[in-house]
Amino acid sequence: MNFASDNAGPVPAQVLEALARVNTGYAASYGGDDVTAEVADRVRDLFEAPGAAVYLVATGTAANALALATLCPPFGTIFCTQHAHIHEDECNAPEFYTGGAKLTLVPEGDMMTPATLRAAIEGEGNRGVHGPQRGPVSITNVTEGGNVYSVGEVAALCDVAQEFGLPVHLDGARLANACVKLGCTPAEMTWKIGVDIAVFGGTKNGLMDAEAVVIFDPDAPASSGYTRAQEFELRVKRAGHLYSKHRFVAAQFLAYLEDGLWRDLATRANARCETLAAGLEAMGVEIVNKTRANMLFFRAPLGVHDAVKAAGAVYHLMGNAPTSPKAVATGRLVCSWSTTEADVTSFLEAVKAAH
Amino acid sequence: MNFASDNAGPVPAQVLEALARVNTGYAASYGGDDVTAEVADRVRDLFEAPGAAVYLVATGTAANALALATLCPPFGTIFCTQHAHIHEDECNAPEFYTGGAKLTLVPEGDMMTPATLRAAIEGEGNRGVHGPQRGPVSITNVTEGGNVYSVGEVAALCDVAQEFGLPVHLDGARLANACVKLGCTPAEMTWKIGVDIAVFGGTKNGLMDAEAVVIFDPDAPASSGYTRAQEFELRVKRAGHLYSKHRFVAAQFLAYLEDGLWRDLATRANARCETLAAGLEAMGVEIVNKTRANMLFFRAPLGVHDAVKAAGAVYHLMGNAPTSPKAVATGRLVCSWSTTEADVTSFLEAVKAAH
Amino acid sequence: MNFASDNAGPVPAQVLEALARVNTGYAASYGGDDVTAEVADRVRDLFEAPGAAVYLVATGTAANALALATLCPPFGTIFCTQHAHIHEDECNAPEFYTGGAKLTLVPEGDMMTPATLRAAIEGEGNRGVHGPQRGPVSITNVTEGGNVYSVGEVAALCDVAQEFGLPVHLDGARLANACVKLGCTPAEMTWKIGVDIAVFGGTKNGLMDAEAVVIFDPDAPASSGYTRAQEFELRVKRAGHLYSKHRFVAAQFLAYLEDGLWRDLATRANARCETLAAGLEAMGVEIVNKTRANMLFFRAPLGVHDAVKAAGAVYHLMGNAPTSPKAVATGRLVCSWSTTEADVTSFLEAVKAAH
Amino acid sequence: MNFASDNAGPVPAQVLEALARVNTGYAASYGGDDVTAEVADRVRDLFEAPGAAVYLVATGTAANALALATLCPPFGTIFCTQHAHIHEDECNAPEFYTGGAKLTLVPEGDMMTPATLRAAIEGEGNRGVHGPQRGPVSITNVTEGGNVYSVGEVAALCDVAQEFGLPVHLDGARLANACVKLGCTPAEMTWKIGVDIAVFGGTKNGLMDAEAVVIFDPDAPASSGYTRAQEFELRVKRAGHLYSKHRFVAAQFLAYLEDGLWRDLATRANARCETLAAGLEAMGVEIVNKTRANMLFFRAPLGVHDAVKAAGAVYHLMGNAPTSPKAVATGRLVCSWSTTEADVTSFLEAVKAAH
Repeated sequence: MNFASDNAGPVPAQVLEALARVNTGYAASYGGDDVTAEVADRVRDLFEAPGAAVYLVATGTAANALALATLCPPFGTIFCTQHAHIHEDECNAPEFYTGGAKLTLVPEGDMMTPATLRAAIEGEGNRGVHGPQRGPVSITNVTEGGNVYSVGEVAALCDVAQEFGLPVHLDGARLANACVKLGCTPAEMTWKIGVDIAVFGGTKNGLMDAEAVVIFDPDAPASSGYTRAQEFELRVKRAGHLYSKHRFVAAQFLAYLEDGLWRDLATRANARCETLAAGLEAMGVEIVNKTRANMLFFRAPLGVHDAVKAAGAVYHLMGNAPTSPKAVATGRLVCSWSTTEADVTSFLEAVKAAH
Repeated sequence: MNFASDNAGPVPAQVLEALARVNTGYAASYGGDDVTAEVADRVRDLFEAPGAAVYLVATGTAANALALATLCPPFGTIFCTQHAHIHEDECNAPEFYTGGAKLTLVPEGDMMTPATLRAAIEGEGNRGVHGPQRGPVSITNVTEGGNVYSVGEVAALCDVAQEFGLPVHLDGARLANACVKLGCTPAEMTWKIGVDIAVFGGTKNGLMDAEAVVIFDPDAPASSGYTRAQEFELRVKRAGHLYSKHRFVAAQFLAYLEDGLWRDLATRANARCETLAAGLEAMGVEIVNKTRANMLFFRAPLGVHDAVKAAGAVYHLMGNAPTSPKAVATGRLVCSWSTTEADVTSFLEAVKAAH
Repeated sequence: MNFASDNAGPVPAQVLEALARVNTGYAASYGGDDVTAEVADRVRDLFEAPGAAVYLVATGTAANALALATLCPPFGTIFCTQHAHIHEDECNAPEFYTGGAKLTLVPEGDMMTPATLRAAIEGEGNRGVHGPQRGPVSITNVTEGGNVYSVGEVAALCDVAQEFGLPVHLDGARLANACVKLGCTPAEMTWKIGVDIAVFGGTKNGLMDAEAVVIFDPDAPASSGYTRAQEFELRVKRAGHLYSKHRFVAAQFLAYLEDGLWRDLATRANARCETLAAGLEAMGVEIVNKTRANMLFFRAPLGVHDAVKAAGAVYHLMGNAPTSPKAVATGRLVCSWSTTEADVTSFLEAVKAAH
Repeated sequence: MNFASDNAGPVPAQVLEALARVNTGYAASYGGDDVTAEVADRVRDLFEAPGAAVYLVATGTAANALALATLCPPFGTIFCTQHAHIHEDECNAPEFYTGGAKLTLVPEGDMMTPATLRAAIEGEGNRGVHGPQRGPVSITNVTEGGNVYSVGEVAALCDVAQEFGLPVHLDGARLANACVKLGCTPAEMTWKIGVDIAVFGGTKNGLMDAEAVVIFDPDAPASSGYTRAQEFELRVKRAGHLYSKHRFVAAQFLAYLEDGLWRDLATRANARCETLAAGLEAMGVEIVNKTRANMLFFRAPLGVHDAVKAAGAVYHLMGNAPTSPKAVATGRLVCSWSTTEADVTSFLEAVKAAH
């Protein structure tokens, strides 16, 4: 019963099968192959965005940082929450890729509201050349705190961005999980409400290492004066993220898109998480995040965590760990496509026994 | 009665005289001249730091950013307050110079405490390669909020930095004003309590454009593997901050150091500010900053500000200005060496009349 | 008969089998897994370098740029030839990763000599802070021109670097092919003769996307003041090159190292190239590169190239293509592990027919 | 008799007088003052460019690097000669400011021709995302080798740039000397023939530290998507090159522009150089640069150089100095506004005596 992360488990058989399927004959390198072209078409279909440019990279950090650098000049600032992956977990990748832009943290917690976002934007734009210039708004859905913004909530944030003429980046490392939770289409949660560039994550939802970056308006000017599509391609190569045997990255996405596999995998992960939540709530355990997809944060005394872990559960405690057994700590449980019902049952039994 | 900034007024006659004095014959360029060597010696004497390396640059932003880049690798983070000049007023200069480091903002306001600094440092060091690495602590004295840290307060912050093995940068754009206020020596407020690199500002205190950067341990390793002194010199040149006719920058500092001019100028500015404060307090006006040097922040209804400005006073209101005449806004008054007693008297009279 | 590049063909079955083998259960992410640890051990064994640090990234551009950034400060310059991949084919990746270092091109062609390297180094070190500081020497073996430096030749270049105290980077995208050609061990062509960081390429020699970076002295200081190993790890993460499901990158290398697969694959590619060369030479066709591994550059009239391509051969012409059928152009033929004897025979027949 | 550089001498009295003249009362900081506005107007008048944006910075390196960063994206390359100041003498400043662009060196020597420039541009644009993208052409006039391009020669280079859609930067550290030599107007040697951004140097021609950057098409898009003027302003601030007491930088330029002082100073320097050249030629000394302004390169045995220096002459030898007294070395003589006829006479006598 490993709930450490949705990057700790195996990949579905379809992914390996797809790799085997494309492993034949010669193909143009660096993304000039047919598999890559087909994936781009299918992503465009899925997002109902025939004019979009679609690129594949192998990590979420690369996808986010490259997208942000395409939208933000070096003297700009990116608006995000203090818990955004781009702020907390990417070792300054956005600062590196943008050439020294700043991140303005919108308080508090893992979710922005139109009011907090507007206040943050207004706070940055009044010092002329002395302060950074307003840059893109970066929204994460599912958030790092395990919450799912509703379509309306993201739309309202995009409206604020648009009011100030700022582009919107969506960190969708768990876009599939959010999409399933919201019961909407990918289009409805992205470009239809104002997202300019979306990262459509694959890795956390079952692929080996593949993320799609979808640029909905590829001809718009980027931070360099090139178009967004041109600049993104150049930045990808310059960062060493252009894979020579590109068909093997693309093949993973092909499997992901066939027969709605991406949706099935996320549905399974979300369902396990709901069972976990129901079980914990039934025991009166406090759950921190209210609108869940595949992650759950729960509070319990350190002694309970220790006992549950001793029973075989693997997961992380948040923040700097306390030392007293009675001190309350927050545990993070992440379900993935490979989480089984047995895992969930065992976990809940372990908590029950520890309480 | 101009209280807009300590960079709005003229320079003392001694500065122009010094320029004239060195304007004779030929001299080695790029800092190889005798005037520059003499200034470095005198700064070392003043700081009682015979082993220090001393460099002159023409702006505080350059001085700060170059010093920070010497102390912080691109994957590091700098600890400062949300009102630090390096965060709010340098258009991402530290991010640019460091090659993409981050600034971690220590809450709240313009002053850190050992507790808030420690919490901020502890909050950044626990994510391995995923988060930024702990970098230098940057302290500003006088703060941007017009407050003066005591020697003991800075020492306590340096102790926290040292506990984590982090170097300390002092933004001393108004070091002279703080020094006069504290009644201490430059050494006592810098290296004797743990400051590694101090910016000894000249521009805000009467020079045309000259700041001294004092590196107390020039042979310590810098962020590049070079020594701090070597790296600083290279970064200065690479940024276009190495002046070819260096004697003219140095001459300003020569004047500044002769007969304690730097101290006299700051003493005058601070004295004017105290008179202002006494006058405002006598009228019951709320002053925001408690331990002042040459800046004063006071709260009054917008209508009062308008009336005072109409009477000829020049100064800035903080933040996004309110629109209702009854709304209270904070005004910033900055005294410089050239502020006269008459300016102060006129200002106080204008406030009195407006109340 | 596709000779376009060694990145155009399929991967051997062992690679896919290895992926399947590790696709079971849960594993620590970001390289904390057992497969990654085992690969590092085996690379250390292969290189007879028990103290080396070993990292895997997915592209050669990333491997090179990250290694160079670990060795070169932003104000330094890297010595390489004008045809080095890092200069011609990485869209400024070294400049990006180092934060703005320069590349000093050692003339002429694709190979340095001790004399040309020494002259280049001496030409850069005499302007104090005005010019860039001398940084690492970057050697490519097999070169981009298809030539193989002998062990002694690389040793002589390393000696020059050492004379000036400069570290040496080896771009070994085709290290396996060079190693087979030279009949030496990996150790003999790297650290035993003075290479500090070697890229041990996998992608061009049969893997999907995996390169090993071998840092022979991981505790030496890097360009940031951190050790080379620490800095490399941080730079990898900051650039988005740290794969969360790291076991799938590692598994490829596991297959590569088992039973000397890497050597077998390179042996096959080199052998095909030799057959090609013998056939062309027998026809009197001029071959440009003298000491070949798996690449061959040959000169022929454009009309011949056109005819050969019309017969089904796929390969690139170098430089800006001429337009007259009689103009002589240089074709590049790259053999890979999957090049068959039939491919070679067909190609030679096509040339014969076209002559 | 100091011929070391045109940055080694004093400044004319008019410069100090101008500083004194503006040193009165309060002025808006950061360039918002009247003196700065007047200078911008006068530069526009001088260049007959009413729509130009004019900025002042304190060093030529800053002026060049900021201008180039405004014209070149991080994945671009700048075309210049191998002896360009931006390549040899700015410690990677262009690479730093552009965020990692490359410099493509146009062979040979210190002057480009349309043919060599075209070949260099064509050599960079044929590798798609793999190579750098073509960026600005940077021309220096007077060149670092002391040669003056004719107006027609610069026009021809601009035509090549325009053919490829590339902007042109003019490093005019010695623009005044070139202008006097050519007997043309500033407009005729810049925007009228295709220069997009010109640096109008002041420091080498008598100012303390002031260079004007003239952006002829300020509304054109810059490398960030902002306009050139907006981006330049932001980059200036971000680099710490925005002077708070801006009137003192501006005052120097005011003096420079009054009564054609800039032209008088350059005329004096050029005249001294011609006398030097005539004297040396009369003695049969070989002069390297043919179309001189205020610099002269001459070849003589090391023994002669030693004797002349022993007689009191100060100047630099080029390259790595030889050691044998009979070996021929090239000396560089730079005349400035303050070079006297007596200096020239003494120098020529010393050479005569040494021969």
